[in-house]
Amino acid sequence: MKTLNQLADLVGGKVVGEGDIEIHRVAAIDKAQPGEITFLANPKYLPLLQTTKASAVIVKPGIEAPGRTLLLCGNPYLAFAKILTVLHVHPPEVRGIMAGAFVDPEAHIAEGATVQPGCVVGKNAVVGAGTTLFPGVILYDNVTVGENCLIHAGVVVREGCRIGDRVIVQPGAVIGSDGFGFAPDGAGYFKIPQVGIVVIEDDVEVGANACLDRAAMGETRIGRGTKIDNMVQVGHNVKIGADCIIVAQVGIAGSTEIGKHCTLGGQVGVAGHLKIGDNTMIGGQSGIAADLPGGEVFSGSPAIPHRDWLRASMSFAKLPEMRKEITRLRRQLEELESLVKEG
Amino acid sequence: MKTLNQLADLVGGKVVGEGDIEIHRVAAIDKAQPGEITFLANPKYLPLLQTTKASAVIVKPGIEAPGRTLLLCGNPYLAFAKILTVLHVHPPEVRGIMAGAFVDPEAHIAEGATVQPGCVVGKNAVVGAGTTLFPGVILYDNVTVGENCLIHAGVVVREGCRIGDRVIVQPGAVIGSDGFGFAPDGAGYFKIPQVGIVVIEDDVEVGANACLDRAAMGETRIGRGTKIDNMVQVGHNVKIGADCIIVAQVGIAGSTEIGKHCTLGGQVGVAGHLKIGDNTMIGGQSGIAADLPGGEVFSGSPAIPHRDWLRASMSFAKLPEMRKEITRLRRQLEELESLVKEG
Amino acid sequence: MKTLNQLADLVGGKVVGEGDIEIHRVAAIDKAQPGEITFLANPKYLPLLQTTKASAVIVKPGIEAPGRTLLLCGNPYLAFAKILTVLHVHPPEVRGIMAGAFVDPEAHIAEGATVQPGCVVGKNAVVGAGTTLFPGVILYDNVTVGENCLIHAGVVVREGCRIGDRVIVQPGAVIGSDGFGFAPDGAGYFKIPQVGIVVIEDDVEVGANACLDRAAMGETRIGRGTKIDNMVQVGHNVKIGADCIIVAQVGIAGSTEIGKHCTLGGQVGVAGHLKIGDNTMIGGQSGIAADLPGGEVFSGSPAIPHRDWLRASMSFAKLPEMRKEITRLRRQLEELESLVKEG
Repeated sequence: MKTLNQLADLVGGKVVGEGDIEIHRVAAIDKAQPGEITFLANPKYLPLLQTTKASAVIVKPGIEAPGRTLLLCGNPYLAFAKILTVLHVHPPEVRGIMAGAFVDPEAHIAEGATVQPGCVVGKNAVVGAGTTLFPGVILYDNVTVGENCLIHAGVVVREGCRIGDRVIVQPGAVIGSDGFGFAPDGAGYFKIPQVGIVVIEDDVEVGANACLDRAAMGETRIGRGTKIDNMVQVGHNVKIGADCIIVAQVGIAGSTEIGKHCTLGGQVGVAGHLKIGDNTMIGGQSGIAADLPGGEVFSGSPAIPHRDWLRASMSFAKLPEMRKEITRLRRQLEELESLVKEG
Repeated sequence: MKTLNQLADLVGGKVVGEGDIEIHRVAAIDKAQPGEITFLANPKYLPLLQTTKASAVIVKPGIEAPGRTLLLCGNPYLAFAKILTVLHVHPPEVRGIMAGAFVDPEAHIAEGATVQPGCVVGKNAVVGAGTTLFPGVILYDNVTVGENCLIHAGVVVREGCRIGDRVIVQPGAVIGSDGFGFAPDGAGYFKIPQVGIVVIEDDVEVGANACLDRAAMGETRIGRGTKIDNMVQVGHNVKIGADCIIVAQVGIAGSTEIGKHCTLGGQVGVAGHLKIGDNTMIGGQSGIAADLPGGEVFSGSPAIPHRDWLRASMSFAKLPEMRKEITRLRRQLEELESLVKEG
Repeated sequence: MKTLNQLADLVGGKVVGEGDIEIHRVAAIDKAQPGEITFLANPKYLPLLQTTKASAVIVKPGIEAPGRTLLLCGNPYLAFAKILTVLHVHPPEVRGIMAGAFVDPEAHIAEGATVQPGCVVGKNAVVGAGTTLFPGVILYDNVTVGENCLIHAGVVVREGCRIGDRVIVQPGAVIGSDGFGFAPDGAGYFKIPQVGIVVIEDDVEVGANACLDRAAMGETRIGRGTKIDNMVQVGHNVKIGADCIIVAQVGIAGSTEIGKHCTLGGQVGVAGHLKIGDNTMIGGQSGIAADLPGGEVFSGSPAIPHRDWLRASMSFAKLPEMRKEITRLRRQLEELESLVKEG
């Protein structure tokens, strides 16, 4: 519980109305009850400002609602996220190495870390203070996990991989699986050993059942603050820059480098050995088969500039009609030709 | 083992021939042996009716095979599935909380439930009678699993999620991972806490390594009887109606609502905040970026009515030829024009 | 550590220079240090041959570099892979059944196998000599795993499935999940029991979080030497031939048969009940909806011969322009027609 004034301090906002009311929870504007705070970002919901039962509403400066208690903020959605965090998110209880966890005697579990039942932590693995390994997390030998991380149930981190601070890994993600590399040897394929690692920088989030492959040699690297959604595939030796958004089921093939502040929509596929410049945006299901310069929006498979793709896609359904019209033009033109030449 | 008469009662069918023979197993028509029952749904396999060694064959009424013992049913495939179930499917032995399972003292495991080794069950979690947690299942605090469920090995259900009765979850599925929500805060992204849950209604099946994200606030909900295949991604706050078929590797983005009796083919992507009406069918690999009214079939990315897509796809390969023909028409037309105007 | 002469024997190569130098490690050509060996496959990096600090370089016969020690091999990349293996890959230590593993008294764990903590091995399951089950592997009853396999953390193998020798399974893969089969019963869907198994032949690799579904009846089969990447979905009763390469996030629907030596690019989808001939190559993101004869390259969704697809894709962006040009041609043609007929 916080007072509205405390929340205003937290988000750098300004209270209009009673600042010392107590706020217990966050709720959607149409479901909020007294004691709750809500937010209004989309102007089309303005009428709800009169009917909500919330004790306070986060809005942009300039919005007026006589008789209502408001919290004015430049970015109501961000303020809402921060208030939600302070009111609803409680770091898991620190419980040390719990019964049913198997920790190698040569592993280093910091004071203030938690290793829940069913976890297995290998030799020389390091787990930082404030980090929680939820049940069934497996850290192979020589893995490093930083401070204040949440590593959810069933996550596997293979040998030697390094995870920074404040990283969140959703359940079932695999970090450091072998890259997919084989040399044809005439009859079949000979496995190229994958002796590199994965490095995950600070403040990254990795989605459920995502797979980040270890490098063949060297590193696969995920840049600071990048958010990776569920079931994303990151190939060996890929580098992803800082603050990217990689939506669910994307696949990025080996050795590709993606700049910072890029957004890849769901189910995008990126071929190997490419360079994607900073601030690139790629529409869902696109296929990228060539370098992209950065700062632009692409869609389609193979991808083209997004506007061109939108227009071309709208013409796609007209293809059969276009073919018929071309045939008609051909016939008509030839008739006219005969007419002229014979005439 | 059952007699053929018992099986006929089970499926509401009619025996032609000897009803008191004993049936031990089900087999494919070309591999069946005496003591086995098989089925014939596709008329092109009618000749096999004479050569199969099966003791009985499930067929549609109207089919005759003098000397053979038949089981006549309106829907032979469904009858086959029911007989397969009764002869071959044995619910796992009830074994209670087994050695090597870690169950919080404040969890509630019903009489008649089984918790196998390597499972971890959190505080206030509830497991209903007749339900089996296979090895390595992790239930976070406050999870509810109903009666007669099969929760396969390595499944993770995060805090507070609710699973109904007779639900089957294949290995490695993740239920209740955080939704993918971040607010840009200038430099990077601030995580929106995901404080909602997932609700899975009765008789749902969830495929291996599928991911169902918890709601930001409120619920992600999977309707009664819906079948979700492997590696399907369901975003936060998605609602899927009853009796849908969601084929492998589909991705459904946040807040989208899918009606009942819908079928989504493999690898389909559905954008967020959409409404898909009841009885919609979507072809494999399609991309849905707009609301769909229901009762229709769509394909393509972006999707268009299936028939239009089939026709347009057939023209796609002709595009280079069409371009050349347009260029030729242009040239010929201009020559003719010169001829007419100069002539 | 090996001498260069020993490595030359291993790969069937020829030393130019000092054969008795000691080689400790493998490294990239621009990072290698004395005591390390590197390789040069791409002629564009030839100048690095003069500047690398490596003690030896693997090159094709015909390349000369006076003063450098070379290892001449017909296939430098394959030689590199073999040397990397001999210098860097150490089979895991044999440790038997470790504390924290739950092995059914009726399971058969060979001498020389390792079962790490958190594993659960069911009744009548068999684990061959030299095989390692990493932490948290779950083998259901009656599973067979051959010799010298690496089954990584969190892998689940369901009842009765059979894995050959020298198979590598990356973390989180699921083998033997139920196939996706349901019979409509009027209102909803009745589950078809999936009573078959999965058979994985020798020398196969299965990627992280991949899913191989058990057959409805009979077998799903993965041929000898085939390599399956992360998050690939293989439906029930699929047969994949020997020495195929199936790249990440491919989905293959039920009962499809894929020949030997096929390559499927990332995110390809293959419909059910198809036959794909030997030596087929399929471009990334393609959708296969019909049988393919073998020996050819296909791309697109629906797929067409790769060359046609390349050309058609290049025309795709021109569609709006083509439509306009067709409209202009129509107008011009009609004007000319009026002119001729009235003239």
